[in-house]
Amino acid sequence: MRKPPGTRDQYRAFRAIPTRWKDNDEYGHMNNAEYLSFFDTAVSLWQLEQGIQIRGPDAHRFLVVESGTRYHAEAGFPDILHAGLRIGHLGSSSLRFEIGLFRNDDATACAEGFFTQVLTDTDGRPKPMPEPIRAIFAQLQLS
Amino acid sequence: MRKPPGTRDQYRAFRAIPTRWKDNDEYGHMNNAEYLSFFDTAVSLWQLEQGIQIRGPDAHRFLVVESGTRYHAEAGFPDILHAGLRIGHLGSSSLRFEIGLFRNDDATACAEGFFTQVLTDTDGRPKPMPEPIRAIFAQLQLS
Amino acid sequence: MRKPPGTRDQYRAFRAIPTRWKDNDEYGHMNNAEYLSFFDTAVSLWQLEQGIQIRGPDAHRFLVVESGTRYHAEAGFPDILHAGLRIGHLGSSSLRFEIGLFRNDDATACAEGFFTQVLTDTDGRPKPMPEPIRAIFAQLQLS
Amino acid sequence: MRKPPGTRDQYRAFRAIPTRWKDNDEYGHMNNAEYLSFFDTAVSLWQLEQGIQIRGPDAHRFLVVESGTRYHAEAGFPDILHAGLRIGHLGSSSLRFEIGLFRNDDATACAEGFFTQVLTDTDGRPKPMPEPIRAIFAQLQLS
Repeated sequence: MRKPPGTRDQYRAFRAIPTRWKDNDEYGHMNNAEYLSFFDTAVSLWQLEQGIQIRGPDAHRFLVVESGTRYHAEAGFPDILHAGLRIGHLGSSSLRFEIGLFRNDDATACAEGFFTQVLTDTDGRPKPMPEPIRAIFAQLQLS
Repeated sequence: MRKPPGTRDQYRAFRAIPTRWKDNDEYGHMNNAEYLSFFDTAVSLWQLEQGIQIRGPDAHRFLVVESGTRYHAEAGFPDILHAGLRIGHLGSSSLRFEIGLFRNDDATACAEGFFTQVLTDTDGRPKPMPEPIRAIFAQLQLS
Repeated sequence: MRKPPGTRDQYRAFRAIPTRWKDNDEYGHMNNAEYLSFFDTAVSLWQLEQGIQIRGPDAHRFLVVESGTRYHAEAGFPDILHAGLRIGHLGSSSLRFEIGLFRNDDATACAEGFFTQVLTDTDGRPKPMPEPIRAIFAQLQLS
Repeated sequence: MRKPPGTRDQYRAFRAIPTRWKDNDEYGHMNNAEYLSFFDTAVSLWQLEQGIQIRGPDAHRFLVVESGTRYHAEAGFPDILHAGLRIGHLGSSSLRFEIGLFRNDDATACAEGFFTQVLTDTDGRPKPMPEPIRAIFAQLQLS
């Protein structure tokens, strides 16, 4: 049976992302591909605010190896989507960001997705996360 | 000589539009094409809030015939852009939306642009704007 | 263990989709969200060419309920991506489109993903696929 | 009076750019902002093929200072747009790329636009174009 849509208490930090006119496709709702852009915007904003270096030549090289989305209900312009964040898996060199998108004041998510990332060295090989970085990510784990 | 960047007092209504990670291109700043999407998002939000019918089968058919942008300064993720709106020309069937984008707390615009629109009938011919619609648009004219 | 990247013989129909300058994000490669847009473009092109009604008031209402992507290798402007299509599951009312993206002349996929779709009635309830539609989709199944 | 749509003989080099499902907005045709992305894709492809360095740390710093589009007729997925290129002004440090988009086999442009670019030094001040670069650009001038 399909897992029911998540609720806000299942996420640890939120970022509000307004939709744009162009997010809607010919079906009059947000195009399926746009959801991932909401996910990586919310994750990037949170990382920047935590002081994690994600830009420039000294950025940590977190490679996205997998992503996925479950669509529960329609959303689209002019909705404001509230992206809830949590980390579902925190391994030695990999982690799984999980994101729930909540439409306006909705209590349940209209979509939920994830990004699996691996920290790599300049040769593209997995390397262990530095402890301070791991400690920052641990804040997004559900207890 | 190039006209200097506009200031906030030259616009009549504002909408805040946060940037997204994906707005930045390989040069590390917002791609030139994205600016127009900020313009049509701001214009659409304002029209919806004024009760102007822009969606569905009964929407007013405003055709965009021309657009343009002058780029004054860089912007990009994670900036919040404040879109100022005004109407620079309000004719019988056509109007010119003018938009200034202000980066975070900046006093001068990082970009300014316009959309020239013509109200058309179902055959695509220009038709005069109904008076109530024109009265709504007139609010955005500078006195 | 991670499943190895797919090869072209594992897909049944191909569509070439060139990248655009704006597809690349600040990391200088194609943004993760863009991949899904390549998937739905390839699927839509194939459906249109098969005569499946996906637009307008009489369109079949195929709702996307889940999507996912595994990223194997980098791609980006100015690459041409060759989208391979197959159908991995063909149920009574649901089906799973599987897409492999092959970069230029590469023999193995740089990314692979899927869309799970459900045919619904106007109330959003699953309904069985008409037999002629199912026969069209069956062409994309691996024997 | 409005200048009539351009024809193919008014452009010097062509690049074919297929539309994507997501290019269409809620009105069922290509969103106004997407046109600029077709322009910069065609210009970038041509520059790369001419060996002009537009990427990486040694790229020539051509700053876009203005852009504009005139929309003549609708276009949208699944059209293939043929972008015609020419250079309308070639100054000491600035140039004006002009682009016409031709829908499928159409003889007249569905949209025409331009990018005005200025070559700058690392402090953002205009600097003269090197002669070999200017010679490359001159190929796109109408005689």
